Amino acid sequence: IENVDGHDTDACDKAIEVARSQSDKPTLICCKTVIGYGSPNKAGKSSSHGSPLGDDEIILTREKLGWKYGPFEIPKDIRAAWNATEQGAASEATWRAAFDAYTADHPELAAELERRWAGSLPEGWEAHADSVIQRLSDEGKTMATRKASQEALEGLGPLVPELMGGSADLTGSNNTFWSQSKGITPDDPQGNYVWYGVREFGMSAMMNGLWLYGGFKPYSGTFLTFSDYARNAVRMAALMEVPTMFVYTHDSIGLGEDGPTHQPVEHLASLRLMPNLDVWRPCDTVESAVAWRAAIESEKRPHCLVFSRQGVPFQERSSETLANVARGGYVLRDTDGTPDVILLGTGTELSLAVDAALQLATQGVKARVVSMPCTSVFDRQEQSYRDSVLPADVTARVVIEAGVTGGWWRYAGTHGRVIGIDRFGESAPAPEVYKYLGITVDRVIEEAKAII
Amino acid sequence: IENVDGHDTDACDKAIEVARSQSDKPTLICCKTVIGYGSPNKAGKSSSHGSPLGDDEIILTREKLGWKYGPFEIPKDIRAAWNATEQGAASEATWRAAFDAYTADHPELAAELERRWAGSLPEGWEAHADSVIQRLSDEGKTMATRKASQEALEGLGPLVPELMGGSADLTGSNNTFWSQSKGITPDDPQGNYVWYGVREFGMSAMMNGLWLYGGFKPYSGTFLTFSDYARNAVRMAALMEVPTMFVYTHDSIGLGEDGPTHQPVEHLASLRLMPNLDVWRPCDTVESAVAWRAAIESEKRPHCLVFSRQGVPFQERSSETLANVARGGYVLRDTDGTPDVILLGTGTELSLAVDAALQLATQGVKARVVSMPCTSVFDRQEQSYRDSVLPADVTARVVIEAGVTGGWWRYAGTHGRVIGIDRFGESAPAPEVYKYLGITVDRVIEEAKAII
Repeated sequence: IENVDGHDTDACDKAIEVARSQSDKPTLICCKTVIGYGSPNKAGKSSSHGSPLGDDEIILTREKLGWKYGPFEIPKDIRAAWNATEQGAASEATWRAAFDAYTADHPELAAELERRWAGSLPEGWEAHADSVIQRLSDEGKTMATRKASQEALEGLGPLVPELMGGSADLTGSNNTFWSQSKGITPDDPQGNYVWYGVREFGMSAMMNGLWLYGGFKPYSGTFLTFSDYARNAVRMAALMEVPTMFVYTHDSIGLGEDGPTHQPVEHLASLRLMPNLDVWRPCDTVESAVAWRAAIESEKRPHCLVFSRQGVPFQERSSETLANVARGGYVLRDTDGTPDVILLGTGTELSLAVDAALQLATQGVKARVVSMPCTSVFDRQEQSYRDSVLPADVTARVVIEAGVTGGWWRYAGTHGRVIGIDRFGESAPAPEVYKYLGITVDRVIEEAKAII
Repeated sequence: IENVDGHDTDACDKAIEVARSQSDKPTLICCKTVIGYGSPNKAGKSSSHGSPLGDDEIILTREKLGWKYGPFEIPKDIRAAWNATEQGAASEATWRAAFDAYTADHPELAAELERRWAGSLPEGWEAHADSVIQRLSDEGKTMATRKASQEALEGLGPLVPELMGGSADLTGSNNTFWSQSKGITPDDPQGNYVWYGVREFGMSAMMNGLWLYGGFKPYSGTFLTFSDYARNAVRMAALMEVPTMFVYTHDSIGLGEDGPTHQPVEHLASLRLMPNLDVWRPCDTVESAVAWRAAIESEKRPHCLVFSRQGVPFQERSSETLANVARGGYVLRDTDGTPDVILLGTGTELSLAVDAALQLATQGVKARVVSMPCTSVFDRQEQSYRDSVLPADVTARVVIEAGVTGGWWRYAGTHGRVIGIDRFGESAPAPEVYKYLGITVDRVIEEAKAII
């Protein structure tokens, strides 16, 4: 609807009525307005956009508009016309009566709806989540973490029917569609999964909106590299304290043949820099489930859940070690006495640190292995815990992650080394790219020996 | 043009002919194709998308398509039909003759065109750039660095007519339109400046494309926060080695009242993590011109030129210090003997480090001030230079920047402190936000004293 006079309320009303009569497509109403309307000297000029009119011009504008009231003084008739208190109270009473009647007829459904609105988890959640994680720990399966992510959904999801999933044209690769997922289609809106198409920004922003609407726990999916397209929506989740869960798979050069356009190298470090955002990069089935649990339990903080395309070995843990996974960083494998060196890894590179520690042990070098799936959660632990994981007097530290090194110096320290990739990737099968770019067990051993 | 059989070359030809006859709007040709066409068992299935067909299926596909030649064997008639060597040679000869004639008629214009195609700078560039920087150093003006950026363009730009500017609806704020800029309009394409509208990604990608086309040195403009919308285009510039110049103004909480949605905090650190990208955040008119010079001279590396909304004082420099600015990090202000502490700052916070050093001097504390406008250029300097700026034995170091701290630990070291903002900003006038978030001279002094 073109050429509507945006300063004429009747014209706007009329346009809105026409729009409302249109039921099979959206309507665009184009209002013509003058910026700084009413200001004799600044109307229609950019000077009325970025800075206040100023005291003198405000006086002139009030005169021009015939406005005779003081600042913040609202004339009685205008206040009365806009006062919606009574109407609002009546509407609320009507709705409350309807919901009370519904509650009487369907007490369980009403309670469930109220639970979801409140954003609280169902009774028994804690015990259920504990048992899922314990089962995965007992099973000790080896698989890609994107597959481990799906296993976590299969385990934790049945208690959380308010999960609302989706992927930007990568459902089959992201493993975000699990056995209780049902697609929303034009013919059947009764689903819990959105096929977004190649639309990363729209997907992420809509998932934020679904949480803000209430009653949903939204999770979206794409490749980690394509988080670039959605970055401002992720930022807005963090800024608005909306706990959207952003699933990012194919998290490194390990995706292989698709090559450097699709291989993230700076993205992990870069997302970790965003305030109020927890980025988890799990190393196996157990860490994947702990990451999902943290994301599902989050009330004010969005999560990035970052998973691999390629398979990773399972890591054995004692029950004490298992309990520490949720702290974001923990000693996965220790030595007797003070370690000679600390090897710190994340995700698919954690197993390189473990293998290096095993080989170093045969050479008489005592290496502690620290797994750090989420740096921001680790940073929020009490000082004494952090010091117990990374003791100040063990300055020989080697960090390994298949990404840029810039974010790791805080943990490696002045005397440490960071093995990473400060360049773009290469197109080749994953094992070849890893070798070519020096992300290897031998490299960990070499750097460790150089600094002990 | 809908429903074109994409496997029928005649049908495709016909559609292209129709498209060519359309001169006043673009044409979309919709081809129907079958993925994995010809493969008896994988045609039309996703299994023919992400992985190779496999040896057995390749044999079956060759049979199905009636293809009787070996791998990489091209039948003579097909080779002849597609061989464009003669046609290409003829076309080139025709073009060469035309250009030779043009060169004979217009020797200077032809030479200038060839210079721009080659991407080389005009004769006298070095001396001119030196003199511009020397003049700015002599003038010692105090202004916002976005204004200093425009001054740099006014000084350096006249020798570089291949500059092609643009902004995503923020020309007036980015100061990217200078006295020799001329907008490109529907009626007059003879300009060197594009009004992009709110289209950060399109702008950035198109600027990359202009450089790839040849003969242009493109620079784009928007607020630093909105770099998020263009992130993948910036990444592609870095990956393709396209030296686009991305101007980002309003570079911190210092933009004030627009508040946290518009206040970048993680962006500087995050862009610095991208491989093959130089991010400059100058502190005054001189550093701004040096940054522009580096960007204009770049042949394979894109640049982010990051400028402030708010004013910054000019910093005095000796001629030796002036020469070091181009090294990305340098000692701006030193003390006698070994410093007690090194204060490192960038951009608008550099002056806080300088003021802190002056106050510390009155208290008998010897503080060196290091300005670090571009960390990646500094990182590429030889070890001995880097050690001379940040000597290993001076471990008391305080870094100050109005952004997240995560990227600075490499320079601060284990015993240093980083003053920054690991949270989102606040809406208020710039001086109040700085004070509220603790980005102050007093804080620098306090942290310095705590670690000496």
